[in-house]
Amino acid sequence: MSRPTVRAVHLVSRPDGAPTADDFAFVDETAPALADGQALVENVYQSVDPYMREEMDEGGWDLHAPLEGRTLGRVVESRSGALPTGTLVHHRKAWRTHSVVTAEEATPLPDFAGVPLRAHLSVLGGTGLSAWVGLTRIARLQPGETLFVSAAAGGVGTAAGQLARLLGAGRIIGSTGSAAKAAHLTDRLGFDAAFDYHDGPIVERLREAAPDGLHVYLDNVGGDHLEAAIGALRDRGRIAWCGAVAQYNHLQSPPAAPRNLYDVVGKSLRLEGFLVRDHLDARPELYDFLVPHLRSGAVVPDETVVEGFDHVVDAFLGMLRGANTGKMIVQLADVRDV
Amino acid sequence: MSRPTVRAVHLVSRPDGAPTADDFAFVDETAPALADGQALVENVYQSVDPYMREEMDEGGWDLHAPLEGRTLGRVVESRSGALPTGTLVHHRKAWRTHSVVTAEEATPLPDFAGVPLRAHLSVLGGTGLSAWVGLTRIARLQPGETLFVSAAAGGVGTAAGQLARLLGAGRIIGSTGSAAKAAHLTDRLGFDAAFDYHDGPIVERLREAAPDGLHVYLDNVGGDHLEAAIGALRDRGRIAWCGAVAQYNHLQSPPAAPRNLYDVVGKSLRLEGFLVRDHLDARPELYDFLVPHLRSGAVVPDETVVEGFDHVVDAFLGMLRGANTGKMIVQLADVRDV
Repeated sequence: MSRPTVRAVHLVSRPDGAPTADDFAFVDETAPALADGQALVENVYQSVDPYMREEMDEGGWDLHAPLEGRTLGRVVESRSGALPTGTLVHHRKAWRTHSVVTAEEATPLPDFAGVPLRAHLSVLGGTGLSAWVGLTRIARLQPGETLFVSAAAGGVGTAAGQLARLLGAGRIIGSTGSAAKAAHLTDRLGFDAAFDYHDGPIVERLREAAPDGLHVYLDNVGGDHLEAAIGALRDRGRIAWCGAVAQYNHLQSPPAAPRNLYDVVGKSLRLEGFLVRDHLDARPELYDFLVPHLRSGAVVPDETVVEGFDHVVDAFLGMLRGANTGKMIVQLADVRDV
Repeated sequence: MSRPTVRAVHLVSRPDGAPTADDFAFVDETAPALADGQALVENVYQSVDPYMREEMDEGGWDLHAPLEGRTLGRVVESRSGALPTGTLVHHRKAWRTHSVVTAEEATPLPDFAGVPLRAHLSVLGGTGLSAWVGLTRIARLQPGETLFVSAAAGGVGTAAGQLARLLGAGRIIGSTGSAAKAAHLTDRLGFDAAFDYHDGPIVERLREAAPDGLHVYLDNVGGDHLEAAIGALRDRGRIAWCGAVAQYNHLQSPPAAPRNLYDVVGKSLRLEGFLVRDHLDARPELYDFLVPHLRSGAVVPDETVVEGFDHVVDAFLGMLRGANTGKMIVQLADVRDV
């Protein structure tokens, strides 16, 4: 039988600042014959995420070579007993239409009937898990508490708002980059208040949105948001600082450290950073908590889906510019075939 | 019977920067007759502490009025059934030779035979409790771990070094303000390494003292120490930031925030501030843990004792300049009488 053509994206140059489409190239090749233990996966959905920007710098992705990222696909040919044809899997060999994987490289997806497949890249995936870990393990959000989320219209932020509501948060406040996104947060995602951070000092917007102060801040951005949140937190408040560090590493200098950091002592605050890769064991907790709400329709994942492999680079660049609300996902193949 | 003369110190002016002896005045008056429920305490030991500097600013201590501070004394006259004559008590009506207290204002001391009385102001008092809470509740120091303590020759720092050794710390490193104090830490208090922070960049001293990095940093100072510690901490390291905030509030501007604060995310660090007044319930734990070691002589509290009430202001000013090693205590009366 003739081998399928694999279309892939390679990185061909390292950007200085904001990346452009010219930093990438599309490459076609024929799928290799499978060795024993390998399976060929037709990729259906791929995630594009902020951390990928860091991978474009020296020390990250190789030039002129396959890239990586969270991907969902279906086994279409197999020489692996653990990955029979038809199995739906999660793997990291992304930026290509088909991937060759071994059983060590691909995880069969749990069968959650009634849950959209791509939820495994959004609220059940890395961004949802980041929100879950930040709220439950790091900040230990309690019922009735007031939560502030920065980058609230992004993948982690929208999941955090939805999860916090289910966890019984008393008041949920989001910061985002446009009035339209702020309206999306309050009108569609159940945030109690949201503001465009371009619209005057964050410290004033927080005073309006949370006159009694914050209990928890889920930070994705640092800088002036962190400073304003430290000012607005109540005694014994907690800051869960999520691993969006990739946003900083390609900058000349990171955002200024908060001038009021010493309030951490006076208000007995806790500031804790985390990387979701250290908390993958929390995934079963997230599944148990969230899947019933996904099945019932009480939670609808907030996603921006870009269709077609030819648009994967555009989707990535758009995500960096904040063109998405919720999780940015690229659909590579027809999902009805799955 | 004639009433005893009470000698007291009042604050008579608010300092701009470093306080001087002229900011205080000694005042003599006759002890008032006791009302029902009151007891007269002859004070034996008084603590002088960094937080008192903050009390000298607007909003703190009143001018021309009695001051406060942690004090140990003995009831010499009583109209309170709860405080019979001879009772040893802890109270906060300090900066005077005698104090009139009620049962609500004075706590009888536990009877720890074989433990020096003044330990209730050092390792069993507020400084010891700060060290205990910082190490056990906030940083959760584990056996074998490497600890760094700033202001290590002070009251909290020396207690922290001794407690950490008993808690099984693998390596204990201290920063202090002179070579003599550094030698005191290693020669007398069991620190594994100590350095004078004037002696070159702290980040380099830490690299020499802890080539494998730090697990825990007990912070008393912030600023460049905090920045160096963030750099030296291992993944998942913890910073317990102790309430020495009083040191900053009278400065024009607090120490610069650490430029590497974003490593809190990349290294999954936890930075947590605390005030010992929120953790007074930990005192029984500290007693249970430490009293046997004090009785056996395994721990000898590190204290600088200044004798005579007339020297209480000198002792306070000396403590602010770092003239003490360990807890600075003023002895007001002959302890053999107790």
